[in-house]
Amino acid sequence: MSVEGVEQAVQDLKVEEKNAEEQEDFVDPWNVTSSSETGINYEKLIVKFGSSKIDQEIISRMESIINQPVHFFLRRGIFFSHRDMHTILTLYEQKKPFFLYTGRGPSSEAMHLGHLIPFVFTKWLQDVFNVPLVIQMTDDEKFLWKDLTLEEANRLAYENAKDIIACGFDQEKTFLFNNLDFMGQCPSFYKNICRVHKCVNVNQVKNIFGFTDADCIGKIGFPAVQAAPSFSSSFPFIFNDRKDIPCLIPCAIDQDPYFRMTRDVAPRLGFQKPALIHSVFFPALQGAKSKMSASDVNSSIFLTDTPKQIKDKINKYAFSGGGQTVEEHRAKGGNCDVDVSFQYLKFFMDNDERLEEIRRTYSSGELLTGFLKKELIEVLQKLVAEHQQKRSQVTDEVVRQFMQPRKLKFAFSS
Amino acid sequence: MSVEGVEQAVQDLKVEEKNAEEQEDFVDPWNVTSSSETGINYEKLIVKFGSSKIDQEIISRMESIINQPVHFFLRRGIFFSHRDMHTILTLYEQKKPFFLYTGRGPSSEAMHLGHLIPFVFTKWLQDVFNVPLVIQMTDDEKFLWKDLTLEEANRLAYENAKDIIACGFDQEKTFLFNNLDFMGQCPSFYKNICRVHKCVNVNQVKNIFGFTDADCIGKIGFPAVQAAPSFSSSFPFIFNDRKDIPCLIPCAIDQDPYFRMTRDVAPRLGFQKPALIHSVFFPALQGAKSKMSASDVNSSIFLTDTPKQIKDKINKYAFSGGGQTVEEHRAKGGNCDVDVSFQYLKFFMDNDERLEEIRRTYSSGELLTGFLKKELIEVLQKLVAEHQQKRSQVTDEVVRQFMQPRKLKFAFSS
Repeated sequence: MSVEGVEQAVQDLKVEEKNAEEQEDFVDPWNVTSSSETGINYEKLIVKFGSSKIDQEIISRMESIINQPVHFFLRRGIFFSHRDMHTILTLYEQKKPFFLYTGRGPSSEAMHLGHLIPFVFTKWLQDVFNVPLVIQMTDDEKFLWKDLTLEEANRLAYENAKDIIACGFDQEKTFLFNNLDFMGQCPSFYKNICRVHKCVNVNQVKNIFGFTDADCIGKIGFPAVQAAPSFSSSFPFIFNDRKDIPCLIPCAIDQDPYFRMTRDVAPRLGFQKPALIHSVFFPALQGAKSKMSASDVNSSIFLTDTPKQIKDKINKYAFSGGGQTVEEHRAKGGNCDVDVSFQYLKFFMDNDERLEEIRRTYSSGELLTGFLKKELIEVLQKLVAEHQQKRSQVTDEVVRQFMQPRKLKFAFSS
Repeated sequence: MSVEGVEQAVQDLKVEEKNAEEQEDFVDPWNVTSSSETGINYEKLIVKFGSSKIDQEIISRMESIINQPVHFFLRRGIFFSHRDMHTILTLYEQKKPFFLYTGRGPSSEAMHLGHLIPFVFTKWLQDVFNVPLVIQMTDDEKFLWKDLTLEEANRLAYENAKDIIACGFDQEKTFLFNNLDFMGQCPSFYKNICRVHKCVNVNQVKNIFGFTDADCIGKIGFPAVQAAPSFSSSFPFIFNDRKDIPCLIPCAIDQDPYFRMTRDVAPRLGFQKPALIHSVFFPALQGAKSKMSASDVNSSIFLTDTPKQIKDKINKYAFSGGGQTVEEHRAKGGNCDVDVSFQYLKFFMDNDERLEEIRRTYSSGELLTGFLKKELIEVLQKLVAEHQQKRSQVTDEVVRQFMQPRKLKFAFSS
């Protein structure tokens, strides 16, 4: 090969790499984007992150242990990936204690549909396993990352607390806290953060989270704040100073980097590694290339929306996988894989038969986009109205009870 | 000039720069070294740090305001530098409130003589100004920086608390706290830390403190923890949630980088800049090239030392500025500027006339090193014995009282 030939080959290789890069999904705790209309390639993400797929085997094991069908989020691949879920199931079989840990970054007054997913699933886990749950609201994170005052981030945490409680958690088994206040209530929490702070260096958080020297020092240290609730010793009032009780963290898979770091440091601190169960992202109205985001109001259906707002947004923005015309749709059928209304039904329609019927008739072209959207609008109007009803009953006093550091009810004694 | 000539000139310049660098004093919060037998060049340090010299004018102003002579630490140049001290004096004249803030990193069970200096001076400031004082023990810092467990750093804080209290602070006007516990007692403290965390980026702390990417993330965030007590709003229980009360920080000048950073961020947060008053370093027994360090036991006289240990260490290690032989000493005289025993007397002998007599007779060769050391030994044996006596009266209950977040007595009402 001539020199020019080699140079051309190198050039071609570079272009190829660049194309591959552009088509690569991007997932970190702050940004999720995909170039594909079907969204993130989750099979690839499992390989990249090194987690395990939730397959039929683990679902069957779970059903035999809990003696009931699993939540449809599991059957439908909405929670699709895990780390050490088998360990948690074994603990449950052995009647040994574990707890649940999930959270929320309170960046907006109104939560949207996507924010419900981890909480709906966590409530189900709490009900079937009958275990304590801690919920972290990272108002400190939102203050550091967003153009928000500390007072505003703090206020949003209390607003969001009401939505979270409205999901129906058992008050006797749930401790809800926001970092800006809890840090000043529990020395053990700060002590565990310091322990993590000593184990992780700047190089590591740059690699894991993509931080740079232009980032504020608060961001650099924050991963330890999200890590600490994974350790039972952060909550001595719940766990009687035991540091050996492991947790299971239900979360969207973009939060996995925090917990990969946590799992890395846990054994060095004599703590248990958290187990994880990961969900897919909830797509924006515009389609699965990005996730629903509260900062883009047109991409989101909020839990504060009126029935009319829900109807208008779905009709106007929900990306359709149907044909351009009725004729085309009848001829070619709709594409459920990219149709946002169908995707939303997967998240919120619990009737498996009805969902399958919609999938079949929409794919064949029999069911038109308008009818599919109408079905979704009804489901969401009902869901949001019910949520608003439940939220209206969450008084400040109820919030105070959930957020009071206290003993929780424990199913297992050992 | 030929190419070789230019290269040689560049080479010469590099060697010159290297020599200049080697002769430069090095001062940061963790290391202080000087290549000079007389120690750090403090005049140069004032210029480098951009602080102001404590001159006769400010001493005279202070004496006229407080209506008594200043502490001999000021007269003798032991506290030699300041930032905004005039502002503090004006507040005092106007009967407007301010507070004192100082601290200690509890890295060793036994504190040494050098550790007493800021506390002795701070007590004097508290007595003459009649103002509240907060004292931070950075057990979190020592855990992050040293090969210490968190439990051990935490324990050392409580041990050192007894030595600090033994310095005679007024319990009604003094709040003593250690970070590992106070963080979990006061949400306002963490909130102010977050505010500083958002204002400072990694580049800045690398420049100010020399951190690198190999440092743990705890170190990167720590400067905000030392900054926060400068702000009255960190202590709502003392200052009734007021954020406009400024503080004066007495400290050794190696701590100045923390407070340069603090003064930089304060106005952006709507807080008052802290004023500072800086001391020189307390020299090691081996001489002023390094400061006394608890991690080098032979460099230090500890507050736990017996009279015999004090005597033996001074006789064996205290660097002498006297002649090699009695004859040489008589002929040439002693050099008080490098003589460690004389330096120590400057810190601990309050009788100006006697000190001047010693300086005069030692310099002339009349007073021999042995007698100078004998005089020092007596002073230190008395001082250490008295400290031990006072410390023995500091019960756990007294420590608990000092460390209880509570209202403090305030001289000024406005």
